[in-house]
Amino acid sequence: MIIMGIDPGIAIVGYGVLEYKSNRFSVIDYGAVTTKAGEKLSDRLRDIYESINILIERFSPDAFAIEELFFNTNVKTAITVAHGRGVAMLAASSQNLPIFEYTPLQVKQAVSGYGRADKQQIQRMVKSLLCLDSVPKPDDVADALAVAICHAHTAKYSRMIKDKGV
Amino acid sequence: MIIMGIDPGIAIVGYGVLEYKSNRFSVIDYGAVTTKAGEKLSDRLRDIYESINILIERFSPDAFAIEELFFNTNVKTAITVAHGRGVAMLAASSQNLPIFEYTPLQVKQAVSGYGRADKQQIQRMVKSLLCLDSVPKPDDVADALAVAICHAHTAKYSRMIKDKGV
Repeated sequence: MIIMGIDPGIAIVGYGVLEYKSNRFSVIDYGAVTTKAGEKLSDRLRDIYESINILIERFSPDAFAIEELFFNTNVKTAITVAHGRGVAMLAASSQNLPIFEYTPLQVKQAVSGYGRADKQQIQRMVKSLLCLDSVPKPDDVADALAVAICHAHTAKYSRMIKDKGV
Repeated sequence: MIIMGIDPGIAIVGYGVLEYKSNRFSVIDYGAVTTKAGEKLSDRLRDIYESINILIERFSPDAFAIEELFFNTNVKTAITVAHGRGVAMLAASSQNLPIFEYTPLQVKQAVSGYGRADKQQIQRMVKSLLCLDSVPKPDDVADALAVAICHAHTAKYSRMIKDKGV
């Protein structure tokens, strides 16, 4: 199963593409789509939409996992980021990809087993689970990989429950 | 000049299409794109995006005017609506339409001359300015027409300033 994980944003959209097979991860690609603060919101949205479309075409993922927005930060920022999240989801939807949404808490729990893990702990777990030489930068990229890992674990767990007829 | 006004939303996206020529409005069309609460967010976003694209193709507006989100309401709702606003703007951007954003205050001032006008006052002004028999329903449709009127007035004022070299 190839999973594309997305950390939504407007200036930086992190992405991570993993293959998860026989309980092992292979890293296919990771990086960030970036847009400039000085550009018009509509142009930034178009850039994000087109870039995510290109990434989906390039890697043909089986699943698209995207983090939900956390509301307790700056509301104005959250609303702007939500515009970007909307067009990222639209790109996946327009290519008929199954879309999975995870809260920051679910991502933390799936990656570290601990919902209150801090950013550094999550990043170290991502590096370790994916056997990377260093923590991917910027943070948004590590976060996107964490979402992809979260989906792999969640999907595996769902299958186990289904197989056992629980 | 043909103007498409949009009141952004996720369950209801109001739209209004006006022609503004020689200081007069002609109503071309108005209505709402609706999505169901039970559907997946990604499906609702796709419906909105595709419907707005169809409306743009049908009416070939010269300008796309969309209301900005007001932050002091429910944050969770605002974030969901922002997803819908993002894909509506993307539709206009992907068809290379000039996009204009107006705050609720700007819309109120442009339509009624009074920034603190209430919803009913704005709706009555929309009905009166456009010579309609009744206030368009739901409210989102009247709001979309108000945004289109706001753009017509603002664009006219901008041209006047430009022409006079102010």
